[in-house]
Amino acid sequence: MKSFITYDSNSDFSIHNIPFGIGVFDNQFVAACTRIGDTIIDLSYLYNQGYFDSIEELEENVFESVVLNEFIELGKSVTTATRLKIQELLLENSDLAKDQQTQDQAFFSLEEVEMMLPIHVPNYTDFYSSIEHATNVGKMFRDPANALLPNWKHLPVGYHGRASSIVISGTEIHRPKGQSKPADAEKPIFGPSKQLDFELEMAFVVGKQTDLGDSVSTKDAEDYIFGMVIFNDWSARDIQSWEYVPLGPFLGKNFGSSISPWVVTLEALEPFRTASPQQDPEVLDYLKVDGEKNYDINLEVYLQPENDQANLICESNFKFMYWNMCQQLAHHTVNGCNLEVGDLYASGTISGSSPNSFGSMLELTWRGQNPLKLSNGEERKFIEDNDTITMKAFAEKDGVRVGFGEVTGKILPAK
Amino acid sequence: MKSFITYDSNSDFSIHNIPFGIGVFDNQFVAACTRIGDTIIDLSYLYNQGYFDSIEELEENVFESVVLNEFIELGKSVTTATRLKIQELLLENSDLAKDQQTQDQAFFSLEEVEMMLPIHVPNYTDFYSSIEHATNVGKMFRDPANALLPNWKHLPVGYHGRASSIVISGTEIHRPKGQSKPADAEKPIFGPSKQLDFELEMAFVVGKQTDLGDSVSTKDAEDYIFGMVIFNDWSARDIQSWEYVPLGPFLGKNFGSSISPWVVTLEALEPFRTASPQQDPEVLDYLKVDGEKNYDINLEVYLQPENDQANLICESNFKFMYWNMCQQLAHHTVNGCNLEVGDLYASGTISGSSPNSFGSMLELTWRGQNPLKLSNGEERKFIEDNDTITMKAFAEKDGVRVGFGEVTGKILPAK
Repeated sequence: MKSFITYDSNSDFSIHNIPFGIGVFDNQFVAACTRIGDTIIDLSYLYNQGYFDSIEELEENVFESVVLNEFIELGKSVTTATRLKIQELLLENSDLAKDQQTQDQAFFSLEEVEMMLPIHVPNYTDFYSSIEHATNVGKMFRDPANALLPNWKHLPVGYHGRASSIVISGTEIHRPKGQSKPADAEKPIFGPSKQLDFELEMAFVVGKQTDLGDSVSTKDAEDYIFGMVIFNDWSARDIQSWEYVPLGPFLGKNFGSSISPWVVTLEALEPFRTASPQQDPEVLDYLKVDGEKNYDINLEVYLQPENDQANLICESNFKFMYWNMCQQLAHHTVNGCNLEVGDLYASGTISGSSPNSFGSMLELTWRGQNPLKLSNGEERKFIEDNDTITMKAFAEKDGVRVGFGEVTGKILPAK
Repeated sequence: MKSFITYDSNSDFSIHNIPFGIGVFDNQFVAACTRIGDTIIDLSYLYNQGYFDSIEELEENVFESVVLNEFIELGKSVTTATRLKIQELLLENSDLAKDQQTQDQAFFSLEEVEMMLPIHVPNYTDFYSSIEHATNVGKMFRDPANALLPNWKHLPVGYHGRASSIVISGTEIHRPKGQSKPADAEKPIFGPSKQLDFELEMAFVVGKQTDLGDSVSTKDAEDYIFGMVIFNDWSARDIQSWEYVPLGPFLGKNFGSSISPWVVTLEALEPFRTASPQQDPEVLDYLKVDGEKNYDINLEVYLQPENDQANLICESNFKFMYWNMCQQLAHHTVNGCNLEVGDLYASGTISGSSPNSFGSMLELTWRGQNPLKLSNGEERKFIEDNDTITMKAFAEKDGVRVGFGEVTGKILPAK
């Protein structure tokens, strides 16, 4: 496939991708859009020019919207057909390739568009599905000899997170204040977190609702997944470790979570399917899967101090996940919990087995014991004020590249 | 104050109450409404007749809505003025008392109106703020000598719950299925929960949003609270106890939570303010409060087997809460977590010190050791299929009664 739009061979946004997002165009209007190379395309304009007339279910211009939810709600048959139509329109010699007037109106450079949160998120759940991450945390905070808790290999452990504080890439986050209890203190203290961290995660967007009482099988689960984003689950470790027993993380997490702006569809990720780690012991029937349910997606994290260059501090991969998305969704609904379109389900920190693949500062510095050395000579145990954390994700195989771009966020001093 | 509408002296919906809800009228239209005695009043009709013309900020008929959120969002000055106007209209010799035509159109009997979920709930948090409940659970599951965890008296422990599965009173709930691990089993098993429970709670509705990064002080917190409902946090104890370490309750809770249909405003509860239990040790500055921040609200729970009478199984009181709503809200936002209008914050199970005031089957039967004896001769360790649980809440003082009505729900067999 070759597009009439030119782009670098290492662009995340090749003709094979065609992700969906929401943009503010020229500070003037908001619309659903896609991206190829460094060109952002206003889908609402294409719609009005009749380019989607062949997709009958697109009755109204759902691209004239501040969120993708209405579009996603139309179902996979419509969203898949729309994506394929866009891909076709972007090929050499297409009708659109010859329509200079529409290109002039619908095509924008990156500088002309500010990306917004692409979905309204009714519910957000965070899983804990990387065995390396769970093992690392267990070694640090519990028993090195029995790092994994008894339930971990039997179910994809997860908890409800805060939907309201999910923000778009680029949003600056103030260092949270809260209670913590230093090991040598008798009483808790209050103040800005001293152990601010990121968590390298991916999240999937639910594309189909269920009724309360209904369940989704692992076999059907992919029908309910529209696509994925990169997810930075900012964490204040000192607040979290004092508060989390017995009901789980709360203020240590809900001050902000950042997502990348482009929702990459499952269809675009199809070429990158790969096997999961072997699960032993065998899981219960409702968690069994057939075939390859993981995806080979390279992940990178960069830490950039103020006025300095970015340091690559972590290289991981989504394929390390012990529990896959189909298992997560089947587990989440097995008790009848209902799904809503736009729900976001995050993976939990994605760590690999090598120390440079650990997906959090907590693990990379082993709770601050081994500070990271930066290119400017500074050290980091945790994130400092005015540091910027950027995560990138991309899949590449046989010359085909499909990526997510990045999610980035700068930490401001406590308010 | 005397209304031209007559009602029983023990009605929860006296002239002093004036709660807000959303009703389906005659299966034909949906509107915001209030209730006095056994009369439900369509507020959208009153609006159209000009009865709210004096409240300028009510620019549009926000009562023509399927949720109260837009009304609540107008702020306390508007919602308080509206409530007082309704109260005035319902007094003897008011304009409305003489307007038979409007009464014919806007006044409905209970049978003619089906109550709906009154608010769209963007975020739901469940606290754990009754010291008797936390102590009981700690005694049963951890160490009787150290029942309370070290953090419990320093912060109002809470966790994020599932917003999508909050349902209106009367909704039937299927017994959830899931994983559990019997004490004598080597591996977890899968099946319908065998330890289904209720939790007697109250919840407050947030009336004012904040921006990410901002905090609300205990002093200002009441400005952010629109009103309250009764909350039944259905819980599957066997699922919960297997899954909840280390990230908190998940599938043991998110299959359904039921709320009462009428949101009773903080203003209506004003006469029932009362002191809180003494907090010792002293709390950190951001959690300190001036004045009485609790409310004296009687709570009752009934268990009714199929085709039999209801058994009163619990009598408790909201005033037992160790942590009050102002402290909960100040804590929730101290890290910058943003509030949204309609957010629901539940108290956690409200138990008192006497065994008949325990707010869950878990505590009432002490984990099944002392089954409840019902009037029909049956026993209950936990909730059985086709049992109906009903919770009631009302405040009463100096001849003034303000109540919540009830939240009820029947458990159906697993699907």
